[in-house]
Amino acid sequence: MTDLGYVGLGVMGSAITRRLLDAGHSVTVWNRTREKAEPLLAAGAQWADSPREVAERSEIVFTMVTNTEAVKAVTEGPDRILAGLGDGKVYVDMSTASPANTRALAEAVDAVGAQMLDAPVSGTAITVEQGKASVMVGGDGDAFERVKPVLEAIAPKVFHVGENGAAVTMKIAINLSLAVQMLAFSEGLLLAEKSGIPREDAVEVMLASVIASPMVAYRGPLVLGHPDEAWFDCHMMQKDMNLALELGRELEVPLPTTAVTNELLTAANAMGIGDKDFAVLFDVLASMAGVKTEVLA
Amino acid sequence: MTDLGYVGLGVMGSAITRRLLDAGHSVTVWNRTREKAEPLLAAGAQWADSPREVAERSEIVFTMVTNTEAVKAVTEGPDRILAGLGDGKVYVDMSTASPANTRALAEAVDAVGAQMLDAPVSGTAITVEQGKASVMVGGDGDAFERVKPVLEAIAPKVFHVGENGAAVTMKIAINLSLAVQMLAFSEGLLLAEKSGIPREDAVEVMLASVIASPMVAYRGPLVLGHPDEAWFDCHMMQKDMNLALELGRELEVPLPTTAVTNELLTAANAMGIGDKDFAVLFDVLASMAGVKTEVLA
Amino acid sequence: MTDLGYVGLGVMGSAITRRLLDAGHSVTVWNRTREKAEPLLAAGAQWADSPREVAERSEIVFTMVTNTEAVKAVTEGPDRILAGLGDGKVYVDMSTASPANTRALAEAVDAVGAQMLDAPVSGTAITVEQGKASVMVGGDGDAFERVKPVLEAIAPKVFHVGENGAAVTMKIAINLSLAVQMLAFSEGLLLAEKSGIPREDAVEVMLASVIASPMVAYRGPLVLGHPDEAWFDCHMMQKDMNLALELGRELEVPLPTTAVTNELLTAANAMGIGDKDFAVLFDVLASMAGVKTEVLA
Amino acid sequence: MTDLGYVGLGVMGSAITRRLLDAGHSVTVWNRTREKAEPLLAAGAQWADSPREVAERSEIVFTMVTNTEAVKAVTEGPDRILAGLGDGKVYVDMSTASPANTRALAEAVDAVGAQMLDAPVSGTAITVEQGKASVMVGGDGDAFERVKPVLEAIAPKVFHVGENGAAVTMKIAINLSLAVQMLAFSEGLLLAEKSGIPREDAVEVMLASVIASPMVAYRGPLVLGHPDEAWFDCHMMQKDMNLALELGRELEVPLPTTAVTNELLTAANAMGIGDKDFAVLFDVLASMAGVKTEVLA
Repeated sequence: MTDLGYVGLGVMGSAITRRLLDAGHSVTVWNRTREKAEPLLAAGAQWADSPREVAERSEIVFTMVTNTEAVKAVTEGPDRILAGLGDGKVYVDMSTASPANTRALAEAVDAVGAQMLDAPVSGTAITVEQGKASVMVGGDGDAFERVKPVLEAIAPKVFHVGENGAAVTMKIAINLSLAVQMLAFSEGLLLAEKSGIPREDAVEVMLASVIASPMVAYRGPLVLGHPDEAWFDCHMMQKDMNLALELGRELEVPLPTTAVTNELLTAANAMGIGDKDFAVLFDVLASMAGVKTEVLA
Repeated sequence: MTDLGYVGLGVMGSAITRRLLDAGHSVTVWNRTREKAEPLLAAGAQWADSPREVAERSEIVFTMVTNTEAVKAVTEGPDRILAGLGDGKVYVDMSTASPANTRALAEAVDAVGAQMLDAPVSGTAITVEQGKASVMVGGDGDAFERVKPVLEAIAPKVFHVGENGAAVTMKIAINLSLAVQMLAFSEGLLLAEKSGIPREDAVEVMLASVIASPMVAYRGPLVLGHPDEAWFDCHMMQKDMNLALELGRELEVPLPTTAVTNELLTAANAMGIGDKDFAVLFDVLASMAGVKTEVLA
Repeated sequence: MTDLGYVGLGVMGSAITRRLLDAGHSVTVWNRTREKAEPLLAAGAQWADSPREVAERSEIVFTMVTNTEAVKAVTEGPDRILAGLGDGKVYVDMSTASPANTRALAEAVDAVGAQMLDAPVSGTAITVEQGKASVMVGGDGDAFERVKPVLEAIAPKVFHVGENGAAVTMKIAINLSLAVQMLAFSEGLLLAEKSGIPREDAVEVMLASVIASPMVAYRGPLVLGHPDEAWFDCHMMQKDMNLALELGRELEVPLPTTAVTNELLTAANAMGIGDKDFAVLFDVLASMAGVKTEVLA
Repeated sequence: MTDLGYVGLGVMGSAITRRLLDAGHSVTVWNRTREKAEPLLAAGAQWADSPREVAERSEIVFTMVTNTEAVKAVTEGPDRILAGLGDGKVYVDMSTASPANTRALAEAVDAVGAQMLDAPVSGTAITVEQGKASVMVGGDGDAFERVKPVLEAIAPKVFHVGENGAAVTMKIAINLSLAVQMLAFSEGLLLAEKSGIPREDAVEVMLASVIASPMVAYRGPLVLGHPDEAWFDCHMMQKDMNLALELGRELEVPLPTTAVTNELLTAANAMGIGDKDFAVLFDVLASMAGVKTEVLA
């Protein structure tokens, strides 16, 4: 089995690391707060004292962090990943970050003799656990072939979509639909509710219909009650929408539903519910429709 | 088995009638053009010379026609359905029409001693054939229980959602997401394509992701080539969007993504491709993004 | 001077009738509630007991009512205007109503030997009083030439824009900008306010800028306090937006900013402030931005 | 009279410098290409070889450049403005740039003993020439009082709107309405045109109506033919829309009409007409409405 490294142990990074351990790989990990690593260390992972050390001790090193700035924070600088990479290693960034930064980083990785892939996941921590997620990969074909068996331990569907940056672009292109689908679902749901159909009945019927994407199936029920911790909050979702809108301007693609939906995420922030799962787009629209909800109570 | 009647043998009505015949029911049919009935007559259905005659010869009579005006055209008047209904019969309208008209019609049906249900289908002719569609039902609970076994021959999932008009409202509430999801999908797809990922590759990856509702799974591939005959053209889709927007104003529910998407359906009509499946929302957006497509060539 | 008739004495109809009286014309009036006519009767107008009688006693008869249904209510039926028209008379409808209805009505007027013009006013009761409004006219050129001198007593700028229905179409085309300009103004104003600039200061600066249309100049100050009676409430404004959106679908013109703004008018209605001037679009947006306003307190 | 300096002699900067010269001030100028300065040198301005030299020779130094990056390019570095400022001088930036950068720059100016004001102009080169523009000013009250008489030579209306950054914020808040008003105007115009009213007639009527802001009055006629050089092209307009949208996210103000209109500016870029005045929003919408225009021919 391969010596792997994993930097960034949020909910998603932890779920992925666990699958890698379960598949028999040796995994060295680092996280900004060691506490989050404990369950994985108990399951057999090894701790390193810096991202650099993770890179030094691994053949393939993964990162999964919040945004472009966080990617820079774990890669650039004396104790960071770039300083630990070298000939024959592969660096795989699974974060959703700016494609332009991904391409620049790939050049920096290349300059130290290693190779980089961008490999964001489509799915949630739950779909990763269930083995139902998919991974998109951007970068050199040889590096892809080397890493592919490892990625298949994470998710059954692995797609090589193009050069460096192509996979994060693909991820951004998919993620804009998350928010738009949630808002369109909410529009329909409020029509049903204000016509007299109980909210829970309407949700049940809608989840049995042709609009029930896995996203709608996961998040639809949140309009009946939110978990204690958000899966993917409005700030995170808006970060991805902003990446999409910037890319749209750069590549000259108008994004009308993305643009409109993003303004309602702004409203969610303004209403003080930006730290809830972006399913609160329902509550924002409900407030515009004069309907009181628990989230905004 | 029950004596059934079916009025309106378009693609959808025909698929449903066939399932009723396959389930062993006796079905009397009528359609504006008899030609479309021929395959069903060959399969055992019986022809009637008017909607009235269908109603007279059936215990339960179904209609599935294009819009509110068409519902009126087959129900009101000397040779129409209302004239053939009577004590103990049930009239089931499966069309997507105005909820207000449905409620008015239910009263007229009640006045002649029969009962009415609105029972639109969520799905396409293909999902009906495959036994994967669902049916929403509005109206009296007793009438629902009587008709339920017959509806289950059409689709495995049958929901009683409320009083008369509730089911068409539910259908409209679902259908707005069809168009919005298609446009959001197109926004992402064009981002991917203009970033250099081949369209067919991007479609494949997107169909393996969490945004792939059955709707996206059916229609996504249409961006690579359209069938000879549209499944549900822009005019039909816009009719449903208009019903949603009217209902939104009546019930005071703002519908931002529905409203924006509807304007792009108008653009499709203006560009001369309104008789294509509404998946041409992709082509409208592509034209705004300076991308040439076959549909608009 | 000419024998004129005026039916519909709301704020606008009263202001116009007063200008006609001031110009020395004889004016016979009728209104659904006689009370509103009193100040005009005191100023020299004569009362008639029905729209028909107004038409019988006038060479040129004007109407200015709320919507398409109200136009029908004063023109069709035994005691209505059509019954009082005849050879050589001209009927001038100044309402903002459906262009299709206007064209149908023009044919009915023609059938009784009279001629019809549609002649909506661009402006408010205040601009009419100040002699700064403009009138658009649709219909036959000869009828236009006959009525023109009378219209010039109402407003200095009189435009013949085309056949019957052209002027109401033009009015609708103008009115959609009222609501959109108000919403865009509100977006900027809230940016300024949340950045720390006092609302009244920001309004003053904006009213001195290139975006200050007469509409913005009238309505901008309403964000600082509303009059007791709305000039043009959200329901009225939405009626015009709906006419625009219907026309857009019929003529195949996408109307993206109109469509989005209309959904915020729906929100105003849902929030219970639909009977206020449509300048409350500011308050709707403020509520989405987490800013409390007096109107929604 | 005062020793003034002016850096950035585009169409607007040149018009302003000319007014300053006409008012009897001594003006030292610098521009990236000397050629553009020639007419002003002929009119009495003096040339300096660097922004630093301009600052050294002036009591009050003005800049008017394209965007935030260009502001940095003329202020930061050895031969730039900051290096030439000192005790008692005032630096006035008339550019529309990021408020955050303006605040940071004001601190740097303060650190060298000088004072900074942000002072963007509302108007065009033409309104400046006609003495009809207005100036908004952000920054310290004393500095404002010192510069006010000079600003009044540029424009009759001078507003002190708040601290550093307040004036550019105000400018951005105003500018979003430019694009939105143009698009709403285009929506109405296309309705009129497709209903059969000639475009030039419809423009004339609309310019006589309550929606005719100075902006609409200037730009409306462009739909009948564009000047050789754009006044303010789509790229410039989109830069300001992006500043507004960023500010909206930062200050938590949803900007629905801004967001939608910005996507149509993207479409203009994609259609290859981004270097035309942003009045081509009309042509973008016309293309969506199936109407051919000269600009897109």
